[in-house]
Amino acid sequence: MVSTVAIFNGPNLNLLGTRETEIYGRDSLADIESECASVADGLDLEIDFRQSNDEGKLVGWIQEMCAAGLILNAGAYTHTSVAILDALRANPVPVVEVHLSNIHQRESFRRRSYVSLAARGVICGFGPHGYTLALNAMAKLLHARKAP
Amino acid sequence: MVSTVAIFNGPNLNLLGTRETEIYGRDSLADIESECASVADGLDLEIDFRQSNDEGKLVGWIQEMCAAGLILNAGAYTHTSVAILDALRANPVPVVEVHLSNIHQRESFRRRSYVSLAARGVICGFGPHGYTLALNAMAKLLHARKAP
Amino acid sequence: MVSTVAIFNGPNLNLLGTRETEIYGRDSLADIESECASVADGLDLEIDFRQSNDEGKLVGWIQEMCAAGLILNAGAYTHTSVAILDALRANPVPVVEVHLSNIHQRESFRRRSYVSLAARGVICGFGPHGYTLALNAMAKLLHARKAP
Amino acid sequence: MVSTVAIFNGPNLNLLGTRETEIYGRDSLADIESECASVADGLDLEIDFRQSNDEGKLVGWIQEMCAAGLILNAGAYTHTSVAILDALRANPVPVVEVHLSNIHQRESFRRRSYVSLAARGVICGFGPHGYTLALNAMAKLLHARKAP
Amino acid sequence: MVSTVAIFNGPNLNLLGTRETEIYGRDSLADIESECASVADGLDLEIDFRQSNDEGKLVGWIQEMCAAGLILNAGAYTHTSVAILDALRANPVPVVEVHLSNIHQRESFRRRSYVSLAARGVICGFGPHGYTLALNAMAKLLHARKAP
Amino acid sequence: MVSTVAIFNGPNLNLLGTRETEIYGRDSLADIESECASVADGLDLEIDFRQSNDEGKLVGWIQEMCAAGLILNAGAYTHTSVAILDALRANPVPVVEVHLSNIHQRESFRRRSYVSLAARGVICGFGPHGYTLALNAMAKLLHARKAP
Amino acid sequence: MVSTVAIFNGPNLNLLGTRETEIYGRDSLADIESECASVADGLDLEIDFRQSNDEGKLVGWIQEMCAAGLILNAGAYTHTSVAILDALRANPVPVVEVHLSNIHQRESFRRRSYVSLAARGVICGFGPHGYTLALNAMAKLLHARKAP
Amino acid sequence: MVSTVAIFNGPNLNLLGTRETEIYGRDSLADIESECASVADGLDLEIDFRQSNDEGKLVGWIQEMCAAGLILNAGAYTHTSVAILDALRANPVPVVEVHLSNIHQRESFRRRSYVSLAARGVICGFGPHGYTLALNAMAKLLHARKAP
Amino acid sequence: MVSTVAIFNGPNLNLLGTRETEIYGRDSLADIESECASVADGLDLEIDFRQSNDEGKLVGWIQEMCAAGLILNAGAYTHTSVAILDALRANPVPVVEVHLSNIHQRESFRRRSYVSLAARGVICGFGPHGYTLALNAMAKLLHARKAP
Amino acid sequence: MVSTVAIFNGPNLNLLGTRETEIYGRDSLADIESECASVADGLDLEIDFRQSNDEGKLVGWIQEMCAAGLILNAGAYTHTSVAILDALRANPVPVVEVHLSNIHQRESFRRRSYVSLAARGVICGFGPHGYTLALNAMAKLLHARKAP
Amino acid sequence: MVSTVAIFNGPNLNLLGTRETEIYGRDSLADIESECASVADGLDLEIDFRQSNDEGKLVGWIQEMCAAGLILNAGAYTHTSVAILDALRANPVPVVEVHLSNIHQRESFRRRSYVSLAARGVICGFGPHGYTLALNAMAKLLHARKAP
Amino acid sequence: MVSTVAIFNGPNLNLLGTRETEIYGRDSLADIESECASVADGLDLEIDFRQSNDEGKLVGWIQEMCAAGLILNAGAYTHTSVAILDALRANPVPVVEVHLSNIHQRESFRRRSYVSLAARGVICGFGPHGYTLALNAMAKLLHARKAP
Repeated sequence: MVSTVAIFNGPNLNLLGTRETEIYGRDSLADIESECASVADGLDLEIDFRQSNDEGKLVGWIQEMCAAGLILNAGAYTHTSVAILDALRANPVPVVEVHLSNIHQRESFRRRSYVSLAARGVICGFGPHGYTLALNAMAKLLHARKAP
Repeated sequence: MVSTVAIFNGPNLNLLGTRETEIYGRDSLADIESECASVADGLDLEIDFRQSNDEGKLVGWIQEMCAAGLILNAGAYTHTSVAILDALRANPVPVVEVHLSNIHQRESFRRRSYVSLAARGVICGFGPHGYTLALNAMAKLLHARKAP
Repeated sequence: MVSTVAIFNGPNLNLLGTRETEIYGRDSLADIESECASVADGLDLEIDFRQSNDEGKLVGWIQEMCAAGLILNAGAYTHTSVAILDALRANPVPVVEVHLSNIHQRESFRRRSYVSLAARGVICGFGPHGYTLALNAMAKLLHARKAP
Repeated sequence: MVSTVAIFNGPNLNLLGTRETEIYGRDSLADIESECASVADGLDLEIDFRQSNDEGKLVGWIQEMCAAGLILNAGAYTHTSVAILDALRANPVPVVEVHLSNIHQRESFRRRSYVSLAARGVICGFGPHGYTLALNAMAKLLHARKAP
Repeated sequence: MVSTVAIFNGPNLNLLGTRETEIYGRDSLADIESECASVADGLDLEIDFRQSNDEGKLVGWIQEMCAAGLILNAGAYTHTSVAILDALRANPVPVVEVHLSNIHQRESFRRRSYVSLAARGVICGFGPHGYTLALNAMAKLLHARKAP
Repeated sequence: MVSTVAIFNGPNLNLLGTRETEIYGRDSLADIESECASVADGLDLEIDFRQSNDEGKLVGWIQEMCAAGLILNAGAYTHTSVAILDALRANPVPVVEVHLSNIHQRESFRRRSYVSLAARGVICGFGPHGYTLALNAMAKLLHARKAP
Repeated sequence: MVSTVAIFNGPNLNLLGTRETEIYGRDSLADIESECASVADGLDLEIDFRQSNDEGKLVGWIQEMCAAGLILNAGAYTHTSVAILDALRANPVPVVEVHLSNIHQRESFRRRSYVSLAARGVICGFGPHGYTLALNAMAKLLHARKAP
Repeated sequence: MVSTVAIFNGPNLNLLGTRETEIYGRDSLADIESECASVADGLDLEIDFRQSNDEGKLVGWIQEMCAAGLILNAGAYTHTSVAILDALRANPVPVVEVHLSNIHQRESFRRRSYVSLAARGVICGFGPHGYTLALNAMAKLLHARKAP
Repeated sequence: MVSTVAIFNGPNLNLLGTRETEIYGRDSLADIESECASVADGLDLEIDFRQSNDEGKLVGWIQEMCAAGLILNAGAYTHTSVAILDALRANPVPVVEVHLSNIHQRESFRRRSYVSLAARGVICGFGPHGYTLALNAMAKLLHARKAP
Repeated sequence: MVSTVAIFNGPNLNLLGTRETEIYGRDSLADIESECASVADGLDLEIDFRQSNDEGKLVGWIQEMCAAGLILNAGAYTHTSVAILDALRANPVPVVEVHLSNIHQRESFRRRSYVSLAARGVICGFGPHGYTLALNAMAKLLHARKAP
Repeated sequence: MVSTVAIFNGPNLNLLGTRETEIYGRDSLADIESECASVADGLDLEIDFRQSNDEGKLVGWIQEMCAAGLILNAGAYTHTSVAILDALRANPVPVVEVHLSNIHQRESFRRRSYVSLAARGVICGFGPHGYTLALNAMAKLLHARKAP
Repeated sequence: MVSTVAIFNGPNLNLLGTRETEIYGRDSLADIESECASVADGLDLEIDFRQSNDEGKLVGWIQEMCAAGLILNAGAYTHTSVAILDALRANPVPVVEVHLSNIHQRESFRRRSYVSLAARGVICGFGPHGYTLALNAMAKLLHARKAP
C-alpha cells in the first residue's frame, strides 16, 4: 500500500513566485506541489499538499492528519505558535521541518522555532529544493519504521 | 433565574482522551462537559461549553458571551495571545483560568500566562477535576456579587 | 482616477464605543469609518474599511489588497504576529500603523511592534483622530509617489 | 479510617482579617480553619492546621508531617525558599499550593514559585475560598490513590 | 484669543537639509518652521519654534514654556534624557512626540523613548510632514480641552 | 505622651565592633543603642531596640510592634526577604531603612532591597551615625503626622 | 575657620514648590536653601547652594568646588550622567547624595545611580528634610576627618 | 570534469558507531564516508572526506580547500568557533551545515551555531542520512551555479 | 592541643538515609557524623557536628563558633542566604563548602552559591564521602597555617 | 595647503595632570596640546584643540567643524551620548576615537561606546601618547583619501 | 590488577611554580605529578599524568583513554570547550573535575563549567592538594563500582 | 642591546591580501611583516612575527616568548579564548591588542575581547597601519620602563 505524506504550508507561502522573486525565486507553491508529487511518486509515496494562513486551521489539519508523516513549513507560525507545537506533539507521526530561507541569518525572533521542539529533523536554506530533500528524508524515516 | 457559566476551551483540547492518555487521562472533552453539566446543575447553574482551535473564534466568543462568568482553558493561546487578554479585559464578568497540567513544571515559555492578567483566579494541575473546582469557585464568585 | 486606501482593524476593535468607554471614548468603529470616509473624500481618496478578530483573515486581506496604501491598526496582533509582518513585507504599498492609545505607556509586551518593522510611519495615542491623521499622512505619501 | 490533611500557612498569614481587610477580606485565619474543618468533615477528612512566620519551622513541619496530603500557602516563602521546596520533594504525599490573591497580577518577584515545582496543582486568587477548593482537590487526589 | 503651540527641536536637527539629504530630505529646519507657521495659521494657532543641541537648555525651555501645548522632536535626547522626561511631567500641557524617521527600524537603543512616557501621542516616520500632522493632532487635543 | 520608635536590626549586626572593625568601626550595637537612646531622649521619643539573626522573629516583631514608627536595618535580609516586606506592608507606621555601608558600592545582589519597597526613606553609608539621622527623620515624620 | 559645604541641585529642582506640590510639597528651592543656611549655621558651616539644569555646568561646578564637602541632588542626571560620576571621583571631598523621593519605588531606570558609586552615603525619601539630614551627616564626616 | 565536494567533520565524530550507539546508531564515520562516496558517484561528484578534533586544523582545511562546495559537520565547534566562521566567510564556495541530531532539542548552548551564519542551508536530525541529503542539496547548488 | 573542626549542616540534611535513598544513599546524617569523627581522629582533630533547618540558628552557630575551621553543607540556604555569607565573612577561620550532589547538574537556581563567595574551596558530588575529603582538605589548610 | 585636524576632548579632561595623577599621569591637557601641535607639525598638519564639559557644545563643535578629520576623546559622553553619535554621522570626515585608559578593564557601563559606532578606528590605553598615535593614524587616513 | 587513573591538565598548567607563585604557589606540575604518583601508590592505583595547551589534543586523549577514571583540570577550556564535554560524555568512566583556585570567586565567565556537566564531582580551591583529594575521591568511586 | 617585540597573529590572518580584499585590502601578512620590520628598525627594535590558526600553539608561543613586549592580533580567538587570556596574564611583558577592522561595528559577539582584559592598550580599525601604530605604542611603553 502506498503511504501518504502530508505537506502543510503556513501563512504567506501562497504568495511564492509572485512577489519578492529575487529572494524566494520564481517557483510558485503550485510548482513546488508538482515537483513534490513527482518526487513522491519515485519514492512510492503520495502527498497531501495544503496551505493556510490560519493558525487554527493548521492545528486542525495536524490533528486530523491520517498521513504516515508530516513535512511542515509553518512559515511565520514557526516562531509564534505553541498551539501548532502542541498539535504536533499529540500526533505520533514523524515531522520534518522545512524553511525556504536560512532562518539563522534573519531577525533574532526567527531563531526560535516551536516546530523544532517536535520535529525529527530540520532542513532550511535550500529554497523549493528543501521540500524534495524533506521527502527523501521522510522516505528514509518511514522505511526505517517498517524495517524489523 | 438560573445563571449561565461559559466554559471555553482552546486549541487541541478536543483531542483529550484519545491521545497521550498516560498524561491527560482517558476523559474526553465530552466527558468533561457532562461532568461540568452535572456539577453545574447542583450549583443551580447552566453551562455553555465550547472548544475551538481558532484564536479569532475564541476572541469572538468572549466578546459576545452573555454568561455571568467565564471558565477559560485557553490551551496554548494562554501563553501567546494578547488578543484573548484584550477580549477578557473588555468583558466585566469574572474569569477563572483552568489548566489540566501544572504549567509551572513544563517548558519556560508556558510560565507566562496572558490570561492570568485578566483572571480572578487560576486552578491548574488537577486534570479534568479542575473544571469542577472552577465551577465551585465561580459559583462562589457569582454568589458574592449578588449579596448586598 | 480615485485611489483606494485600505484601513484594516484587528481584534477587539469591533468593541469600540460599547465597552471601556472611559478609556477608548464613545466613538464606535462605524463612527470612525464614517469619519474616515468623509476625510478621505476631501483628500480625493476612497477607503476600504474592515475589521477582523482573525489573524489568518487579516493576513489574507493584506495579501489580496488592491489599495494604493494600507492604514493598519492590528490591535493585539501588533505585538505577536510575525505572519502579519511577513504579509506586509510581501506587499510593496506604503503602510501607516495606527494605535488608539499610546502603547509606550502600557505593559512592556506592548512595546514590541512587528508592524513597525514594515510600516513607513506610526501614529499612536490620539484615539479615533489617529485615523484621520493617518489618512492625511497616506495622502502625502501617495502624492509623493506620483510626483516625478 | 479518617485521613488527615495538613494545612500549613507561612509568614504574615496570622494577620488575616485584622489588617488590609479591603484586600484580604474580614476572615481571620481562625475563620478559615473553622471553615476548613467543617468542609473536611463533609469529605471524611481531618485537618492539621498551622501557621508560622519561620522558614525553618515550616521545613520541620513538612519533614515530620504524617498527613495523607498537604495544602500549603507558604506566603512570601513561596518565592524565596529553596529549603521548603527540598522538604516538599523529600515527602511523597501530594501537595496543593494555595494563594489568596492572584500572584500573577502582582510584583514580578512573586511570579516565581518554588512551591509550584513540587506541587500537584495550584489554586490562587479566590481568597479564603481557595482553601475549600484545595480540600476538594485533595480529597479527589487521595481518593484516586486508593482506587485500585 | 490665539493659542500658541511650542515646537521644540533637539540636537542635530539644525542640520536638516544640508547633510544626509538622501535620508532626511532637502527640507531645512527653517522650511519646516515656515510650513508649520502656515499650517498653524490655518488652525488658528501660533507657533514658538526653536532648536537646541543642549539638553539643559531644552529642559529650561520646557519649564518656562507658556504655550498651550508642546510638539517635541527631542532627537537623540529622546533616548537618553530623563531630565527632559521630568520637565515634561512637571508641565501639564499636552505633548506630541515627533520623529522624522521610523525609530523602530533603527538601532535597538533608539527603541527606548523617555519622551513617550510623558507624551499624549507619537508620530514618527513621515519626515517633515510629521510636524504638520502633529499640529493637527494638537489642535484637536486643545479643542477637546476647551469643549464643555 | 512620649512616642516609641522601634529600631530593629537583622542578622550579624550583633557582631558590630568585635570583628571587621576596619570596615564597620569600633562601635558595638550596644554603643549604637546607647547613642540612639540619648538622641531619642532629646527628641522626646523612646526607643525599643532589638536585634535578631532570625527572619521569622523579625517578621513577628514587625507584626506585633506597637511603636509609632520603625527604623529597620534588616542586614542581609534586606536583599532576600519578601516575608519582611509583607510584614512591613501590613503595618501602617512609617518605616525608615538604614544601612551602615553604602550598599550601592558592593556586590550586585545587594542592590535589590525589598525593604525599600515599603520604606518612606532610606539612609545608607554613614555607619552608626545613620541611626541618629534616622531618628531625626522619624521625629520629623511623626511630627508631620500629628500636625493638623 | 568656618568650613563651606557645597549643595548642588540638578535639573528641574528649580520647579520645587510651584508644580506637583501634592508630590514634592510646597517648599520651594529657596525655602530649602534658607532652611539649609539656618541648619548649617548651627553646625558652624557655611553653604554654597546652587541649581542648574545643565549637565556640563554641574560637572564644572564639581570640578571647581572649593568646599569641604558636597551634598548633591543630581535629579535626573543621577541616573544618566557618567560625566558627573567622573567629576565626583576626581574630587577627594566627601559626597552625600540626596533625593526628595524614594527612588526605589519609582520607574526601574531610576534605580541605577551613578552618583552612588562615588558618594559616601545616600539619603532619600524624606523630602526637603533630607537636606537637613545630609548637612548633619556631612558635619559628622567633616568632624571625623579633623579628629586626630 | 568531476567536481569535488569537501566533507569535513569536527571533534568526536571519529567515535561514531563505537559509543553511545543507542543515540547515534551503529554507523561508523567510515560507513558514512562509504555511503557518501557511493551517493556522490551517482551525482557525478567526488568527495574529500576528513575528520579532526582540532579547531586549528579545521580552519586550515577550510582555508586550503579546493573543492567546489563544503559539507560541514563541525560538531561541538559549531557552537564555539568564531575562527571557523571566519574561515568559511573567507571562502566563496557554498557551505551546507549538517548535524546528526536535532540540536534544537538539546542544551541551550547548542542552539547558537556560528556555522549557520555562513552556511547556505542547514540539515539536522536525520543521523547519517543527513550527509546524503546534504550531497543532494550540494549537487543542486552546484548545478544552479553552472546554469547560465 | 587538638583542634576542633565545626561541621554544620543546613535544612533537610537530617532526612538523609530515610528518604530518596536511591539519590542520596542509605547513610544517615548520624552515620556521616560517625565517619567524620573517626576520620578526624586519625587527623588529630575533633569535630563539632550539627544540623539545623533554621537559617537564623545557622547564622548564630557560625558567629559563635570557636572551631579552627568550618566545613559547611548549607543545603538549600547555599543558594538563598546572604545572611550566612555575611556571617562567614565576619569569621576569619577557613571554610570548606560541601555538597552531596553535583549542584552544577541540577536546576539553574542551584548554580548560584553565596557560600562559595566566602569559602576557601568547594567539594561537591561525592555523597557522604565529600565530608571525609573536606576533613582532609581542612587538615591541610590548618597545618599550613601553623607552619612558620 | 596644510590640513587641519580637530582634536576635541569631553568632560573632565581639563582636570588632567592636576588630580589622580597616579592613574592619568602628570601631563596636563595643555601638555598634550603642545605635544600634538609638535607632532602635527611633523606630519604637515595643523590642529584645532578644544575641551568642553558640555554635551551640547561638543555636538555644536562637531557640526561646525571644518577640519579634514576629527580625533575625539569624548570622555564620559562616549558611553551615554547618542547626540554626539548623530553629529558624527552627519559629518563625513574620518573620526579617530581615543581614550587614555583601557576602557575594557573598567566598569561594565564603560564598555559601550556610541562613538565607536561612527569612528574609523579606536586607540585606548596608552595615556597621552594615544593622541600622538591618533595623529599618525589620521595622517595616514587623510593621505589615503588624497591618493588617486 | 592495579587500575590506572588518568590525570589530564589543560592550558597554562605547565607554567605552575614558575610564574604568579604568590597565587598558585611554588609547586610545579612535576611536583604535583610526583605527589600524585606517591598518593596513588598508597591507593593501589597507577597514574597517567599529562598536560596540553591544545583543545584538540585533550579531546583525543579523552577519547583514547584506557584508564579506569579521569581526573581533569581543563584550565581555561573548562569554560569554553563543548568539544571536551562531548568527549567526556562519550566515555563512561567516572570524571573528577579539579581546579586549583576557587573559580566562583573570579570573573563571571569562569562560573560556567562545561566539564561539570559530565563530572561526577568537583573539587576546587585547594591548590595542588586538590589533586590528592581527587585521587582519594576517585579511589572511592572505583571501589564502589567493583563492590557487588 | 636591541629589544625584540613579538607580533603574533591568530586564525585566518594568513589569508590577508588574497581574499575579501575589498574589506581587508591588498596587503598580505608578509607585506605587513616587512612593513613592521622596517618600522621596528627605525625604533631600534627587532620583531618576531608569526601566525597560527591553532589556539594551543598561540598559547604556547605566548608562554615561551622571550620578547620585551607582545603585539597580538588574536583574530577570532580574541572573542572566545580564555586560554590565551590566561597565558597573557602569566607573562608580565606589556601587550598591545590590534585588530584590522573596527570590531565595535560588527556582530555583537565580536564586542567581547578576552585579550583586552590583559592588554595595556587596544588599536583597532586602521587596517595594516594598526601594526605600525602598535609598534610605536610599544616602543613608548618599553622606553618608559627603562627610564629611571
